Amino acid sequence: MDFWYTEKIDNSVGLTLKVKEHLFHKQSVFQTIDVLETVFYGRVMVIDGMVMLTEKDEFVYHELLTHIPLQFLDSPERVLIIGGGDGGTARETLKYPGVKEVVMVEIDGSVIEAAKTFFPSTACSFQDPRLRVLVNDGAAFVKQDEEAFDLVIIDSTDPIGPAEVLYSEEFYAACSRILKSHGILITHTESPFHHRYRDTISLVHRRLRTVLPKTFAYLGSIPTYPFGLFSFAFASRRLNPITDPFLAKHLPTDLKYYNRELARGAFALPNFMKHLMP
Amino acid sequence: MDFWYTEKIDNSVGLTLKVKEHLFHKQSVFQTIDVLETVFYGRVMVIDGMVMLTEKDEFVYHELLTHIPLQFLDSPERVLIIGGGDGGTARETLKYPGVKEVVMVEIDGSVIEAAKTFFPSTACSFQDPRLRVLVNDGAAFVKQDEEAFDLVIIDSTDPIGPAEVLYSEEFYAACSRILKSHGILITHTESPFHHRYRDTISLVHRRLRTVLPKTFAYLGSIPTYPFGLFSFAFASRRLNPITDPFLAKHLPTDLKYYNRELARGAFALPNFMKHLMP
Repeated sequence: MDFWYTEKIDNSVGLTLKVKEHLFHKQSVFQTIDVLETVFYGRVMVIDGMVMLTEKDEFVYHELLTHIPLQFLDSPERVLIIGGGDGGTARETLKYPGVKEVVMVEIDGSVIEAAKTFFPSTACSFQDPRLRVLVNDGAAFVKQDEEAFDLVIIDSTDPIGPAEVLYSEEFYAACSRILKSHGILITHTESPFHHRYRDTISLVHRRLRTVLPKTFAYLGSIPTYPFGLFSFAFASRRLNPITDPFLAKHLPTDLKYYNRELARGAFALPNFMKHLMP
Repeated sequence: MDFWYTEKIDNSVGLTLKVKEHLFHKQSVFQTIDVLETVFYGRVMVIDGMVMLTEKDEFVYHELLTHIPLQFLDSPERVLIIGGGDGGTARETLKYPGVKEVVMVEIDGSVIEAAKTFFPSTACSFQDPRLRVLVNDGAAFVKQDEEAFDLVIIDSTDPIGPAEVLYSEEFYAACSRILKSHGILITHTESPFHHRYRDTISLVHRRLRTVLPKTFAYLGSIPTYPFGLFSFAFASRRLNPITDPFLAKHLPTDLKYYNRELARGAFALPNFMKHLMP
């Protein structure tokens, strides 16, 4: 007998995956977490009915979230990850030997536990002594913290639900306060192929620019995210990732998606996406 | 009652679309043609169970197939389209006032008829006197034709079924014979996210290089094609689309996807795709 899991958007279009086994289900304090063993994508983590992570294509998302900014930093030492409980963003960030501390503030400890149990290749860096994990509210953390970061990565769920506050002007202002003068903030902004997400893209850039005046959008192809095309925002006080030189002295050799030509290309937007930029 | 059309790949992953109405069904001599009215993508043409065209996202495919090469040509006058029965490729090509003749050789007249009836915005150029439509076998045409073309675009169905011959070394040799010395050949090579398609990509480039030594791959995001990421091959005798100047004197102003920065970016391949290039 065939079992299929289908993620539908607006009850009009969807991704469907053949499932071998439903490995895990938990209603945490914040959200519903499921883990499926699928035929094509291997293990898949689904949060509140939306695919967050698959073994087969998570490399695209995690490489784009990390190496795109890290390659523009001279010698980043301290990185803050808001969310990122599956460990993939930490894993990529810790590939830089100069990074001394990665602070991960994940609101839901159940995501971390599920990742450790079911996604060992994503959650492989939880033993690294440079990773400090706080199971806490990221929005509260950035308001209180007094340390300075070279890079802040917002690796959250979508703007609807517990992560909504992570798309607010107030939150961006707090992030900017703990960012070093040369620092970069990265967040994701959904797919530009959907009208509702298009509003999100414009809004996030407008809000970011109130505290970090230079923002740029970039794109990556993630088959299991809606419409297969996912967008990110790159914000800083003065960097231009289209023309500025790459300053990193180290480039990890095991990357499956990122390279420096691709990094430039990711910022070249289709016309319909350019029009969304404020 | 909800009706959904689902296109599955390898019976393990699929795209599912909510359908308002099944507008058309025909078994032609070559293939099965269906037209659906869907909630999200508008009208959708399905050939042999695979989505070929949707009103909402066809612009990506057609702009990438045409403007990418046309912008590297000084004053293209004659363009050959093999396949392309829906008219979208002809529509984009005819946006260049210097183009004097577009020859479309479509094997299946039923595709043309279905496009004219159900996709008027795609099939809007069939009345253009510069378009010559031949309902004929493209492989036979290129063997016999004696005219020279600036650009040959292979806008066919997938490499399985009636279009298989359009991926052969013999066919590429025949295309090269009718290509002017500065001419470009474009074909598509499926999604690099699937192992079977990955073999297709390597194979097509190897075969093309036996007659057109310079080949490059480029990518575009098409949500309704498998995995949302589609690849194309750009082949010529000496052009390098990553570094060579754009020679076109005209750039259509109504494009929704293509711009010149994007054109450079489309050739910047993720590592996993670079490794497929021979």
